[in-house]
Amino acid sequence: MIKEVQEYMSAKNFSKLKEYLEVLNSADIPLLFDNLDEEQIIIVYRLLSKDKAVEVFAYMESDMQEKLINALTDKELKEVVDELFMDDTVDLIEEMPANVVKRILKTVNNDDRKIINELLNYPEDSAGSIMTTEFIDLKENMTVNQAINKIKKIGIDTENIYTCYVLTMTRELIGTVSLKDLILTDDGVIIKDLIQKNPVKVNTLDDQEDVVKKFDKYDETALPVVDKENRLVGIITIDDAIDVLQEEVNEDFEIMAAMAPSEDKYFKTSVFTHAKNRIVWLLLLMISAALTGGIITNYENAFAAVPILVSFIPMLMDTGGNCGSQTSTLIIRGLAQDEIKTKDFLKAWWKEIRVAVLVGIALFIVNTIRIMIQYNNMQLAMVVGITLFAVVLLSKSLGCILPMIAKKLKLDPAIMAAPLITTIVDTCSVLIFFNVALLIMNI
Amino acid sequence: MIKEVQEYMSAKNFSKLKEYLEVLNSADIPLLFDNLDEEQIIIVYRLLSKDKAVEVFAYMESDMQEKLINALTDKELKEVVDELFMDDTVDLIEEMPANVVKRILKTVNNDDRKIINELLNYPEDSAGSIMTTEFIDLKENMTVNQAINKIKKIGIDTENIYTCYVLTMTRELIGTVSLKDLILTDDGVIIKDLIQKNPVKVNTLDDQEDVVKKFDKYDETALPVVDKENRLVGIITIDDAIDVLQEEVNEDFEIMAAMAPSEDKYFKTSVFTHAKNRIVWLLLLMISAALTGGIITNYENAFAAVPILVSFIPMLMDTGGNCGSQTSTLIIRGLAQDEIKTKDFLKAWWKEIRVAVLVGIALFIVNTIRIMIQYNNMQLAMVVGITLFAVVLLSKSLGCILPMIAKKLKLDPAIMAAPLITTIVDTCSVLIFFNVALLIMNI
Repeated sequence: MIKEVQEYMSAKNFSKLKEYLEVLNSADIPLLFDNLDEEQIIIVYRLLSKDKAVEVFAYMESDMQEKLINALTDKELKEVVDELFMDDTVDLIEEMPANVVKRILKTVNNDDRKIINELLNYPEDSAGSIMTTEFIDLKENMTVNQAINKIKKIGIDTENIYTCYVLTMTRELIGTVSLKDLILTDDGVIIKDLIQKNPVKVNTLDDQEDVVKKFDKYDETALPVVDKENRLVGIITIDDAIDVLQEEVNEDFEIMAAMAPSEDKYFKTSVFTHAKNRIVWLLLLMISAALTGGIITNYENAFAAVPILVSFIPMLMDTGGNCGSQTSTLIIRGLAQDEIKTKDFLKAWWKEIRVAVLVGIALFIVNTIRIMIQYNNMQLAMVVGITLFAVVLLSKSLGCILPMIAKKLKLDPAIMAAPLITTIVDTCSVLIFFNVALLIMNI
Repeated sequence: MIKEVQEYMSAKNFSKLKEYLEVLNSADIPLLFDNLDEEQIIIVYRLLSKDKAVEVFAYMESDMQEKLINALTDKELKEVVDELFMDDTVDLIEEMPANVVKRILKTVNNDDRKIINELLNYPEDSAGSIMTTEFIDLKENMTVNQAINKIKKIGIDTENIYTCYVLTMTRELIGTVSLKDLILTDDGVIIKDLIQKNPVKVNTLDDQEDVVKKFDKYDETALPVVDKENRLVGIITIDDAIDVLQEEVNEDFEIMAAMAPSEDKYFKTSVFTHAKNRIVWLLLLMISAALTGGIITNYENAFAAVPILVSFIPMLMDTGGNCGSQTSTLIIRGLAQDEIKTKDFLKAWWKEIRVAVLVGIALFIVNTIRIMIQYNNMQLAMVVGITLFAVVLLSKSLGCILPMIAKKLKLDPAIMAAPLITTIVDTCSVLIFFNVALLIMNI
């Protein structure tokens, strides 16, 4: 792709280049830009047809958008902004530096500026902050024919014309009509007879995570967003919901690996920011782990008497950590997907206890065999085996309970993932281990 | 919701119940079933309108579907199967036991049975296995009017009518036309003039993960699936792609927490299966961790001379594990989302090294302060600090390199997540720690 473009470019064969660009997918062209210098980007961009140029612009990363805007004339910028859907305009304004925002807002008429300001005012991560304001609204008493004519008139500027929204005179949402139903129904039928009442909808202040869950559950491609008075103020389309889903998943992965979540991509994040995002949790966990070390010093006599005990610490710590993170991962995911609810607390715990017993027995047996072969010391095998069993039971219980408590306390359950569980389980395993050893070995 | 239904049910007020059910969303009714007994489920199901009944059926979990099918007459079953989209029929057949499959296939005509067999033959997780075979196909020389008439005729049985596919006489895919364009264009225009050439498409044998990536990248709501000869054989709709996305993410979470991935939900999975999915990795990691323990025994003299050394083992192990898992999580996610490519190997490593230096310095300083306050022992502070710095550098390097090697070897990078990295880093930290101690402390 890049080869062709550079060939046409160096041959100054712009008509061929224009032709070539026109068949490329708008989502692919920004990738092309990564390999061109600024001047070349402007040339390519200006060769695009107007519709395509706007699509390409919407697909671009914000640093690229900024560069491009700086190269565009005010008239060209106005053309872009006029054609962008409202949610994309708002995204753009949120990302650009003040001087660029000023230029953008200058191109916008008063009505749109009012809408933009309203959208900017919705809390971050709310449904209102990701919705767009272009949609097809119909009235109950329209005929199918009138409805289709309305769609023909305003559809060109609307992101999603496949679900139409039926509103009262005061713009309250009554229900939806799909374009499919309109197309498949005779012209004279009244919209009232086609309405899907009780539509799935979200509120402007709903969390975007809940919006994604509704998309997933109800298999919709767009959801209406209403205000407190049930007036339709916007819609969210599925492509934006997927972006949110990916963002939320990445956030969970990052939190679960003990990092401050970041919305930026890996290579786009500076070394300094990467380090900053990781240091806080590392320090916290390092200090907690130091406590485990402190506990060990209390048992100096034990391992001075039986030095071999020390060599089991890593295995017990790791196994406890792994057992706990298995459980906490499943519970955190289940909670995130509403498959496990906090009221299922005892049900989940009881499940984990039974799993822990099975797992504990398996590890006990394998471990006993190993120790008997290696050291032929039944007492040692029992000390390690009993500790192992207790650690499995404990870590699986904590892995189940802690995320649910976090959820109940309205914290993000993802913080109760492997790193924190591991640190807590470590302390407990060391305590259990030395106490079992003292008891059985009569040290 | 359940309260109303049970009230109507006990009052035997079926007409009211029917009315009530009709306004409920089809995706909510299966949740209702969870609280009804089998007999009540059948009553509710039979009260649903035909269209709704099929929708509800498609939303049901497979164990519920099986129960329901067992209660349905052959005629009722045929009604359901006739109305299901082909992908849902195939899903159903894959989930049901043999005797139910036999009953289902009896209701299907010969043509459909052939299609079902073909779909069943696609490899698991391929595009072919999740596609459906109902779509709108058009010819280049049709007019917009003819196209819309065709949609009106066959649209009712088609899952997605919003993207139409333009085919040659031999059913090769030329391009797509959106219903939006058809609606917004005059009746007499020829389809040829509206075609979007070079459509985003997938091959029947493409991995479903790649399908999801295309949906995400190109913001489409349906993708055409072609065979080796570029003939259109089916389409994949976005709701199915989202299901795949969720599945893949869950799989990654499970593998990264050292479990065999499972497609079943948490509570639907038996205790025995849960235990089975977890034991293998735990055993493997337990045995690896035992190696670390074995290494420790080699340094018995060291910790006999300076027992306090032992107390730093947990902190060093945990910190190394956490550092490594931070990096491996970012790299694994980046690889999964095609944001990081294996050719970026050195670029990513160099980034991690610089991050590690910053993180290492921060941890070094905090740790030195703590040891000086607690023990006022500069030698000890240096031993632990230097080890810490080396462990951070090593664990971040391994966290970066190992997932990329796995990817290069066509393994799932997710196996190189926290648990495995932790185990490897543990061994190394212990080795580094005691050697640094021997060197500096002259033990």
